[in-house]
Amino acid sequence: MLIVQKFGGSSVANPERIRNVAGIIAESFLYGHEVVVVLSAQGDTTDELLDKAAEINPNPSKRELDMLLATGEQQSIALMAMCLEGMGLPVVSLTGWQVGIRTDAAYGAARIRRVDTERLRRELDKKRIVLVAGFQGVNKFDDYTTLGRGGSDTTAVALAAALHADRCQIFTDVEGVYTADPRKVPGARKLEEITYDEMLELASMGAQVLMNRSVQLAKRYGVELEVLSSLVRAPGTKVKEVSKNMEEMKITGIAKDEKVARVTVVKVADRPGSAFRVLNAVSKAGINVDMIIQANGQDESTNDISFVVSQADAEAASRALSERQAAIGFDHVSVDTDIAKVSVVGAGMMSSVGIASLVFEALNDEHINIQMINTSEVKISCVIDAASADRAVAAIHRKFFET
Amino acid sequence: MLIVQKFGGSSVANPERIRNVAGIIAESFLYGHEVVVVLSAQGDTTDELLDKAAEINPNPSKRELDMLLATGEQQSIALMAMCLEGMGLPVVSLTGWQVGIRTDAAYGAARIRRVDTERLRRELDKKRIVLVAGFQGVNKFDDYTTLGRGGSDTTAVALAAALHADRCQIFTDVEGVYTADPRKVPGARKLEEITYDEMLELASMGAQVLMNRSVQLAKRYGVELEVLSSLVRAPGTKVKEVSKNMEEMKITGIAKDEKVARVTVVKVADRPGSAFRVLNAVSKAGINVDMIIQANGQDESTNDISFVVSQADAEAASRALSERQAAIGFDHVSVDTDIAKVSVVGAGMMSSVGIASLVFEALNDEHINIQMINTSEVKISCVIDAASADRAVAAIHRKFFET
Repeated sequence: MLIVQKFGGSSVANPERIRNVAGIIAESFLYGHEVVVVLSAQGDTTDELLDKAAEINPNPSKRELDMLLATGEQQSIALMAMCLEGMGLPVVSLTGWQVGIRTDAAYGAARIRRVDTERLRRELDKKRIVLVAGFQGVNKFDDYTTLGRGGSDTTAVALAAALHADRCQIFTDVEGVYTADPRKVPGARKLEEITYDEMLELASMGAQVLMNRSVQLAKRYGVELEVLSSLVRAPGTKVKEVSKNMEEMKITGIAKDEKVARVTVVKVADRPGSAFRVLNAVSKAGINVDMIIQANGQDESTNDISFVVSQADAEAASRALSERQAAIGFDHVSVDTDIAKVSVVGAGMMSSVGIASLVFEALNDEHINIQMINTSEVKISCVIDAASADRAVAAIHRKFFET
Repeated sequence: MLIVQKFGGSSVANPERIRNVAGIIAESFLYGHEVVVVLSAQGDTTDELLDKAAEINPNPSKRELDMLLATGEQQSIALMAMCLEGMGLPVVSLTGWQVGIRTDAAYGAARIRRVDTERLRRELDKKRIVLVAGFQGVNKFDDYTTLGRGGSDTTAVALAAALHADRCQIFTDVEGVYTADPRKVPGARKLEEITYDEMLELASMGAQVLMNRSVQLAKRYGVELEVLSSLVRAPGTKVKEVSKNMEEMKITGIAKDEKVARVTVVKVADRPGSAFRVLNAVSKAGINVDMIIQANGQDESTNDISFVVSQADAEAASRALSERQAAIGFDHVSVDTDIAKVSVVGAGMMSSVGIASLVFEALNDEHINIQMINTSEVKISCVIDAASADRAVAAIHRKFFET
């Protein structure tokens, strides 16, 4: 069996953790599997390198930043290789260019174009454990690129797809995907399986187990993922096309995103195309918009248009609108960052009635006011005030999982 | 004019030093020169990486050690590039494999086989300052190799040779090559010029300005070197084929090496081939021997054979001999590390009589006993007790340079 394993930065943060991970790798190898391992930079290495760069130049080019950051993963694979050597195991470490991970030229956020498998296959055929530096590749100029946030997960999925791996295990500091954040909701349950789409919704809703990009890639190439802990030996959560539980369990999990903001455009002139002009201004600024409502203003000739963006984008959205105030026609823009989005995710949701009403009932019981609602095939999201978010998650979780 | 500049680890140890070096590079570039810069890893980075490795595995493979160490220089070039970018200058950084520095497969001590100039030329043609990671290359398997001690100097000379550079400047923390160590001998003078051979003798005698290997490479390809300070703006010392001063100045400099040991094989049987068997045993252990004397032992049937090795090799030499004690035939081996080698170097030395006698006179005046003597075309070396070394250097320096 060919297994791709990925370990994040906290899993290799110090010699003790490195030895622990080496034990997991060794176990898979000694079971007779072919093992390809993707590693992130150790602990805070990437942040330390960013600090070093900032001391020299607060605004360096992305090319040189990638040149600098790529060293973090290279150090991880070398150190892990030494650890496995110390255990008497055959091992070789390879950087992104050595593997042949070819990306586009978008420094800092490159997308993988192609993965050569020749060198990987050659090393596997020599019965070696192969360690690959995550997060990095090279573009057509042979210049280093990095893949951006969650890049090592993406590397692992891309390698698994290219090598037609039998398994792709993503080791993290949690034991799997839960019905809600287990640190906040004591009754939260670990899911045995989840579909790609459910995982995508949970990830985009703030459950930071896997980055959306790697899940999308896994879905596209049919790579079955397993999310599991590098510290606790226990089965994790499988992410695959069709979950066997899909029909039985109506909802999969509950997630909360507090890094959102509500932008309200106040007193938009009530004429055709107003909403389009508002949303167009925001989208032209490269900002993703989620959940839109249009409500009658106090007078009859205007509407208020509200939408949700990530907090990081709120100021830019407000600026983009203000620049076109005359063309769009509105009074002013207000931004509220004191909100949270609570989402209920489940692939079987829409086929069964009453899910939405159970959600509303749970929030109503807690006297939590719903500001905005959005529904899709696999989720229901509610915007509520930030202070009530944890209480809302717990209440919904009780309603669905604990009765 | 095409200039290759090399800056060592202490020259780029922190942001302030990086900015200082960026100023030197910028000046050359703004004078209209094509500038290729070779950098070492920052300050103690290499030692820190070695410590990290030792924590994981006290005896890692050299391949993985090179994978780890190569990151140090990569970080230096990225940070320097950011600094030059901040000054508004066009710059690009390149690692060893990006340049195409091809080496043999001797991890940890690789020798450069070939330097591709295509990428370098292309970047220079774009009017960019090109920063190259020193100390590293790739072998025919596309695996990282490092060049061993003084590797960045070697990189600089190899690039200068491949690009037919007009100048190769080696920036260090001293202002050039001196007639003696200026920290110890107040009257020491900076040399304007020195020949390759003189530099080679001085380097091997413990004057750590340039590693022998880079001087040998420079000599072979006729690359004129200039050794100068990155902190003090002053002309340094030129290392070239024929120094204009060669005929006038009989000796060039005085060096001292305290990291030597005297190994004495006591009571070697006085029969044909004994000396050969002694030296062969040591050389088969891969140890270089310098200065050999054979003296009659106390009885007439044996000799004592003494030779000088580096302190690091003394134990191994003693062990190699003891293992063959029966075959060689001797009583025991003694090691004396309490010695120093003082050398007088000068290309014009042998053509002029009396140099040796002036050296002996200087030592005699100071009542310093000479244990061993060795002479060559360009140097005279004396082994004396370690405690007298500084006094010996000062005395010889006075005799030749201060009268």
